[in-house]
Amino acid sequence: MRRPVITLTTDFGLADHFAGTMKGVILGICPEAQIVDISHDVGPFGISEGGYLVAQAYPYFPRGTVHIVVVDPGVGTLRRPILVEAAGQRFVAPDNGVLSPVYAREKHKVRCITSEKYFLKTVSQTFHGRDIFSPVGAHLARGIAPTKMGKPIADYMRLHSERPVRTARRGWTGAVLKIDRFGNLITNFPAEDFPDLETRPFELSVGLETVRRLARNYAEYGPGELFVIVGSSGYLEISSSQASAAKILGCGAGAPVELRIL
Amino acid sequence: MRRPVITLTTDFGLADHFAGTMKGVILGICPEAQIVDISHDVGPFGISEGGYLVAQAYPYFPRGTVHIVVVDPGVGTLRRPILVEAAGQRFVAPDNGVLSPVYAREKHKVRCITSEKYFLKTVSQTFHGRDIFSPVGAHLARGIAPTKMGKPIADYMRLHSERPVRTARRGWTGAVLKIDRFGNLITNFPAEDFPDLETRPFELSVGLETVRRLARNYAEYGPGELFVIVGSSGYLEISSSQASAAKILGCGAGAPVELRIL
Amino acid sequence: MRRPVITLTTDFGLADHFAGTMKGVILGICPEAQIVDISHDVGPFGISEGGYLVAQAYPYFPRGTVHIVVVDPGVGTLRRPILVEAAGQRFVAPDNGVLSPVYAREKHKVRCITSEKYFLKTVSQTFHGRDIFSPVGAHLARGIAPTKMGKPIADYMRLHSERPVRTARRGWTGAVLKIDRFGNLITNFPAEDFPDLETRPFELSVGLETVRRLARNYAEYGPGELFVIVGSSGYLEISSSQASAAKILGCGAGAPVELRIL
Repeated sequence: MRRPVITLTTDFGLADHFAGTMKGVILGICPEAQIVDISHDVGPFGISEGGYLVAQAYPYFPRGTVHIVVVDPGVGTLRRPILVEAAGQRFVAPDNGVLSPVYAREKHKVRCITSEKYFLKTVSQTFHGRDIFSPVGAHLARGIAPTKMGKPIADYMRLHSERPVRTARRGWTGAVLKIDRFGNLITNFPAEDFPDLETRPFELSVGLETVRRLARNYAEYGPGELFVIVGSSGYLEISSSQASAAKILGCGAGAPVELRIL
Repeated sequence: MRRPVITLTTDFGLADHFAGTMKGVILGICPEAQIVDISHDVGPFGISEGGYLVAQAYPYFPRGTVHIVVVDPGVGTLRRPILVEAAGQRFVAPDNGVLSPVYAREKHKVRCITSEKYFLKTVSQTFHGRDIFSPVGAHLARGIAPTKMGKPIADYMRLHSERPVRTARRGWTGAVLKIDRFGNLITNFPAEDFPDLETRPFELSVGLETVRRLARNYAEYGPGELFVIVGSSGYLEISSSQASAAKILGCGAGAPVELRIL
Repeated sequence: MRRPVITLTTDFGLADHFAGTMKGVILGICPEAQIVDISHDVGPFGISEGGYLVAQAYPYFPRGTVHIVVVDPGVGTLRRPILVEAAGQRFVAPDNGVLSPVYAREKHKVRCITSEKYFLKTVSQTFHGRDIFSPVGAHLARGIAPTKMGKPIADYMRLHSERPVRTARRGWTGAVLKIDRFGNLITNFPAEDFPDLETRPFELSVGLETVRRLARNYAEYGPGELFVIVGSSGYLEISSSQASAAKILGCGAGAPVELRIL
């Protein structure tokens, strides 16, 4: 029997006991679970970032995986817990738009989780990751059908996907989605929408700099030189070999990015 | 057969190989173990903090779980390794008071671990987490009885639990126990001891501010407003919606907290 | 059946999805794997540091363990992926010298990994941890023989092990290898090569200070006093009880260390 996989994506950090406590709850209900951390370092209130991270990871997980996503500034309010079935996997999260990147890519069904018998007996006002999302995820992993958790809904919250906006015949304005650990700037330009970059000259401006080079790997240019690369994210990234492009450019998440294809 | 759960709480951080090496030792002895990290980011020498973290987590773990707690500034001295049986679970730790919050809450039996045959063959002076605590925990998890590890002792070290002190008919002085990742100040006022806060006006002073509001959830007040909330810890916490209360107040762990119920 | 153990050592950090995504790939191929993180906090481009960490950990893992090491500044270039068999275990890494400490200690056989059928179907230019090293490691863990992965090679890259250099009859010059979380300076002086320190006076100079004391444990001297200790690493370490020796000395990795035995 294949052991069920459960992933966790939260903004709880690793210094506190929160992630560990969720795993205790999960293993009490589904002792066979394989638990995998996607990230616990989503910035506080980082709904877009949490969605980006889980969307990068889920295509690489086996069918049947249960993804628990707890980026939940509205914990304790009336925002609903939801269960999403998509891509042969299940996602458990608050209904605050954090799963929008999954909705954008996959056929999906969304349920409002209402079956309190799958919650912990006492539900706190402040830690639904422990009291609701972990036990529901663990019950799903041990075989409880999604239909038992609640009814389908259509009015779930969906964030407008932040795609670049066309501002000229051959010009687009987008933004930096995330700075990764190496200082690469991940933009919201999907590489597959801009195949011309491989064959035509272009200018991609961010901060005070304009980048005109596309690299095939991180070592193609010398240390400190900026280039565009199609990163593993599937988006255009701005990088610098053995240096942090983010530091060179003085830019962070949200910074505007202009692309002109010449 | 249920797979045995082993948790780790240390001050080793995650940048070094220490936690990974402990897991290698554990899996060599008990290949079926499910290993869960509670935290490896206990501040160096943070005996109270380590005890707080494991005490927050253990009630959510299944019966039979083995908790390995290595916050051990006295490693290599004559301080004893101990095994504690409490709440249907087992705790392995140095005898420096780190398990005091478990003693305060649970009926418990403490043994001094003396059976060197359950240690690694070579015991270093500096890494008992690898050489003593991990192998002992793994042998317990695979079914070795606690009685095999050593004899019960009564003179184990116990830290006076830091409870608020009554300083007036309706006044108490306590302290900040911990700042969590979101900047919430966790005080040492157990919420259950102060039910009056829900029905009577009160003043809770910390730093230069006095807080007079109790919230049921983090979104009840506007960004930047301070309020008291009964956190998932079971203690009164001072919080601020979408902002760090610790930054607003300029306070850290150990700061005094005054409560008056009016 | 023993569950196969796979370890991960990378410079990906834990804030991004990278380590989690690698685990998804592994569990899709080898659902029974026990995955252990050694460290994901190797400094960017820290080939020596990554090698040090995996070399500290592997002796404590069970036979048959597969260690995946992805410290890979040359990702996407022609540098080869390699598979090393040593000490009854397997190591999968880029051929950039990161496994040199394993070569220095163990009889070993190195293969160039060329069997693309064990890679993911699409191999990116930037994330071979996900696309090559994880699937190859997982196939090894589920029983595919190393011989299936590629042919033995002899011209793999090997970094000169950074051992202290003898500069006088009883004098050596070495370096700080790493600062650990507690601020201990781990030097490259193997303790077993310098047994005289236990019986003879010595002077070990680093930064502006000279240390003349050998301690058996961290509590032997008072807070703030510097001493030499044989750490769990097997190297001479410079430490200070309840204080960071690195802060006291103002030294970091790479700082020169002089030893004179008197």
